[in-house]
Amino acid sequence: MKKAVVLLSGGVDSSTVLAIAASEGREIYALSFDYLQRHRVELEYARMTARAMKTRRHLIISFDLREIGGSALTSDIEVPKRIGEGRPSPPDEIPVTYVPARNTIFLSFGLAWAEVLGAEEIYIGANAIDYSGYPDCRPEYLRAFENMANLGTKASVQGSIKFSIKAPLISMKKSDIIRKGSELGVDYSFAWSCYDPQPRDKSFVPCGRCDSCRIRAKGFAEAGVRDPLAEDIYPDVA
Amino acid sequence: MKKAVVLLSGGVDSSTVLAIAASEGREIYALSFDYLQRHRVELEYARMTARAMKTRRHLIISFDLREIGGSALTSDIEVPKRIGEGRPSPPDEIPVTYVPARNTIFLSFGLAWAEVLGAEEIYIGANAIDYSGYPDCRPEYLRAFENMANLGTKASVQGSIKFSIKAPLISMKKSDIIRKGSELGVDYSFAWSCYDPQPRDKSFVPCGRCDSCRIRAKGFAEAGVRDPLAEDIYPDVA
Repeated sequence: MKKAVVLLSGGVDSSTVLAIAASEGREIYALSFDYLQRHRVELEYARMTARAMKTRRHLIISFDLREIGGSALTSDIEVPKRIGEGRPSPPDEIPVTYVPARNTIFLSFGLAWAEVLGAEEIYIGANAIDYSGYPDCRPEYLRAFENMANLGTKASVQGSIKFSIKAPLISMKKSDIIRKGSELGVDYSFAWSCYDPQPRDKSFVPCGRCDSCRIRAKGFAEAGVRDPLAEDIYPDVA
Repeated sequence: MKKAVVLLSGGVDSSTVLAIAASEGREIYALSFDYLQRHRVELEYARMTARAMKTRRHLIISFDLREIGGSALTSDIEVPKRIGEGRPSPPDEIPVTYVPARNTIFLSFGLAWAEVLGAEEIYIGANAIDYSGYPDCRPEYLRAFENMANLGTKASVQGSIKFSIKAPLISMKKSDIIRKGSELGVDYSFAWSCYDPQPRDKSFVPCGRCDSCRIRAKGFAEAGVRDPLAEDIYPDVA
């Protein structure tokens, strides 16, 4: 069984990617990050997905990106909200929820773990269609990371592994991602999307109005699939 | 004053790079990493250098690379030792002190911080001459990282910054590095090199026999400069 490292944020995309990698016969090593993100509750969802999907191991690496800041997800900048219709931020207007070099940091740890495991594939839920316009979700970026990875590791330089960054969702619409995941049995009640969790009853509910909630709602609606969290989370848009 | 992020391990090379960046008029933001490395004492030396060299800020990011392992510096693999003459490990024989994807992880955090600071330069003490043969110290790797960085960040994609990975030591001999640092007033009593610190008197002394100690000793000897730590640290080779 081929091993694969899967970056698992706990959201819709990474949960679907994990299911895709499993359906392709990979032994899954899921990797999540506690970077003191505003929506840190996503890690609980990542844990549920990792358990439900029979991953071989789920590793959570912790570090503090608030010390670096520069993002609405790691500092006191407000998360933008909208109500009603309207396209999420287009790619030429990168929103303040962008976290500097986040995927580069995540993929770097993924690369380290893949090298130790002898896994040649690192799966990431990057998507360049229904997304927030982050530059580190684009195919040209992912190719450049892969190229760098193969120049900077012992395993690749010695010829025992050629690393591959797999982004099976890169050009899929959100609705197609959700349809695909549903076919593969992904339980989206274990997927968290919201950037700005709202406290309620000793837990959190999604805000329903940030880009990520809106992209999720639109995706489920277009897929004709009922979002298992819809009633709780975005009464405004569901 | 142009800002620069300087990766500061606390060793001879990164201390020299910091001095070079300062001599070129940069405002220094020094970045170190506590990854639970075997030679974590190097961070005390990094702090001393950061203080002595008047850095604008010194940030230490913490995470646990022992969870990933795969290196003599982060797991229970023994650090190789030799006594007497003999070339340190040549580049075609990458030693077990190689830490998977370490410079990629370090540079990724450096990139994140540089983007938030608006610094276009990230300095690294990588050297491909008198070194341990690590693939992530070679110029082709550093160029690939730089290319990736400029595709994956908001500041570069929007055209406000073009990031540059600066490795001024890349093709210098260790002895030239030490001569250069000495000219610039680097205090090498604040530079730690050893991979395998030996406990002594509630503190640590270098082993004097690992690759890193040996490369240091040879460098000081060839430079004709007295290593301020020589008597304490490698009586065998000093």
